[in-house]
Amino acid sequence: LTDEASERASRPLRAQGPLYRIDLAYVGTTFDGWQSQASGNAVQDHLEKALSTMLRHPVRALGASRTDAGVHAEMQVASFATEVAFDAERWIKSLNGLLPRAIGVKALAPADAGFHPILSARGKTYVYKIWRGLSRDPFLAPLAWGVHKAIDVDSMRSAAAAFVGTHDFTSFCAADSSAKTRTRTVSAVEVAESGPLVTITVSGGGFLKQMVRTMAGALVEAGAGRLGADDIARMLAAKDRRVAPATAPACGLTLLDISY
Amino acid sequence: LTDEASERASRPLRAQGPLYRIDLAYVGTTFDGWQSQASGNAVQDHLEKALSTMLRHPVRALGASRTDAGVHAEMQVASFATEVAFDAERWIKSLNGLLPRAIGVKALAPADAGFHPILSARGKTYVYKIWRGLSRDPFLAPLAWGVHKAIDVDSMRSAAAAFVGTHDFTSFCAADSSAKTRTRTVSAVEVAESGPLVTITVSGGGFLKQMVRTMAGALVEAGAGRLGADDIARMLAAKDRRVAPATAPACGLTLLDISY
Repeated sequence: LTDEASERASRPLRAQGPLYRIDLAYVGTTFDGWQSQASGNAVQDHLEKALSTMLRHPVRALGASRTDAGVHAEMQVASFATEVAFDAERWIKSLNGLLPRAIGVKALAPADAGFHPILSARGKTYVYKIWRGLSRDPFLAPLAWGVHKAIDVDSMRSAAAAFVGTHDFTSFCAADSSAKTRTRTVSAVEVAESGPLVTITVSGGGFLKQMVRTMAGALVEAGAGRLGADDIARMLAAKDRRVAPATAPACGLTLLDISY
Repeated sequence: LTDEASERASRPLRAQGPLYRIDLAYVGTTFDGWQSQASGNAVQDHLEKALSTMLRHPVRALGASRTDAGVHAEMQVASFATEVAFDAERWIKSLNGLLPRAIGVKALAPADAGFHPILSARGKTYVYKIWRGLSRDPFLAPLAWGVHKAIDVDSMRSAAAAFVGTHDFTSFCAADSSAKTRTRTVSAVEVAESGPLVTITVSGGGFLKQMVRTMAGALVEAGAGRLGADDIARMLAAKDRRVAPATAPACGLTLLDISY
């Protein structure tokens, strides 16, 4: 169990039958996150509603990552089970017709009986996007955090190195995290820039609630010259959320990939 | 005069004073094109309203390209004049606050007195995006034409070569084009693919109404194996809109760059 969302792993699927893997992408701006909400406006709600309409029986989908409200996904993986005969072309077409336009089915295929979106995942990659300055790019703005202060990418890179490795990330996750252990392994943090856009790409085995956003918040402070790698090492060692900077907003985060 | 929009070139600007160049980007989906409309929902309407509010006098903006309803722009260039003292930072911030979120100001700077968005342009580049197959990418779908038939990129490339050079494009522009001459020079047509996405990038000195969209419509037919470079050469020679395939939808077209 490598992920905050792993608590859900033991909840039973309602439907019986062969298992399927569905790969989704979504622009998260208007949704209440991945996990089913009373509002019915979580991505899981929309997916389960579309699957249930198409298959004509109640369907429960299990997602690999419990993205927060406003977070985007280039790749979210979910599983569901049904006895209905598989028809890839018809199912993909039908689901893309039933889902809101900001959610898309990229692929849908039979999965091994042992496939589990959370437990089978080997690692995940997130990208956090920052848009510097006063100009606005309407294609990128909804997917990035607009930061008006000057931030330096080399300073961010130096500080980012302190996150790589296996650490207790208590200082860099939501204070209400329900994870049993807060030790996680970050395999890489890459900071890149292209004009006003800065991207922080973070890969690892699993992530705590708001972990990438809290890391991004600290790296923007590093870019502004207000802290360095030593400060981040000190904050990790403190194991206290209150010592690290504010969590960066959800709009800048995208779940980029999940490896199996 | 190299562009369909050139008829507007002689219309006077209402305001006097130094001239400014503004670089804009917009996601065109919800707008009634560039040129001012009775609806007040053209990009020009939104820009002139924002400029007039900010500068506290009526402002007329002259745009480089009269993009159709639904067409996007990574780079549209406009000019306006005002006696108000220039303040780049305040103006960009203020305009991005006043404009709809799907329109963004990328840059704003004083222009030479002789600057003219249409007459000073040396060339333009458009990209037409096609999304193949049943899967949906919600980040790209609003910017692409979804095509469900199999299309082959090599066949598109072969056919595209017939467009390069100086031709009478009567067969590949809107039948109601008001341009005095329909001879235009296309300097390059590049077809590329990345997974389900196919892009047609077209550069030239200037374009007729719906010219890139009609070229894209023909190239998709070429990709489906229904016509080749010889057919396109024959269609050009016919100088009759009725001999060429249907115009591709506006949603797939983006004005990518204007060179000065």
